[in-house]
Amino acid sequence: MQPKDIAKDTAKVVQNFLTYKAVQLVIAQLAETNPSESIWLRQYSSGGKLRDAEVYLRDIMSEPRGKELALRIMTVRDSMAEQTLEFLPEIIASGVKKDNLAHRRHLLERLTQSPDETINLDPSEANSETEDSD
Amino acid sequence: MQPKDIAKDTAKVVQNFLTYKAVQLVIAQLAETNPSESIWLRQYSSGGKLRDAEVYLRDIMSEPRGKELALRIMTVRDSMAEQTLEFLPEIIASGVKKDNLAHRRHLLERLTQSPDETINLDPSEANSETEDSD
Repeated sequence: MQPKDIAKDTAKVVQNFLTYKAVQLVIAQLAETNPSESIWLRQYSSGGKLRDAEVYLRDIMSEPRGKELALRIMTVRDSMAEQTLEFLPEIIASGVKKDNLAHRRHLLERLTQSPDETINLDPSEANSETEDSD
Repeated sequence: MQPKDIAKDTAKVVQNFLTYKAVQLVIAQLAETNPSESIWLRQYSSGGKLRDAEVYLRDIMSEPRGKELALRIMTVRDSMAEQTLEFLPEIIASGVKKDNLAHRRHLLERLTQSPDETINLDPSEANSETEDSD
């Protein structure tokens, strides 16, 4: 698995997710301005149809009321991409590191927790013990 | 929906996906070096357990053979994040734009395709006709 392939697969996942978010936003906007259209779009988009965003968009365009909705969804996802992408690498990198650290801490706590009586038996090892124990 | 919230939600999706990719890679590596461990990890990771990566990692750590695997998966996802994130914004942005363009073209083709005879009847309306007609 090459980094470029992983990046490509990840980008596809993000594109699907942004499309899903765009559809959600358009549904919410339409609920204010055109409730029946909002309900139609909500129903049309259910049942896992959004798993592949490009198939979804292609399909919705063949619906009589779907053409304008598709154009609107595409505009929204494009603007979402523009607004969010700059933050993304930093948020992901720090998220992975933060959660990895939390898991390692949790594991260390569990590994040092059980037999309390084995800790600090030998004072010469106290420093290294206190660093590892919880 | 604020851009920061969308970025945060998207980052979570990417973190889950990178963890899924990391698990796949570790399974593939173990298939060479430790087939029984590979099979165990594949079976453990099935059934949608990877939908929430942090819950998955927390849970696998409580398995006797899961601690080292969890540490390995975390190392792999961290390195995947480091290797792929720099490419990500550009790939996503250009992917969305490319696919949006393809959908718009497809729509335009369909709108101008059907009643061939109505097109260019009146040369003065030709431009608006090709854009609006069905």
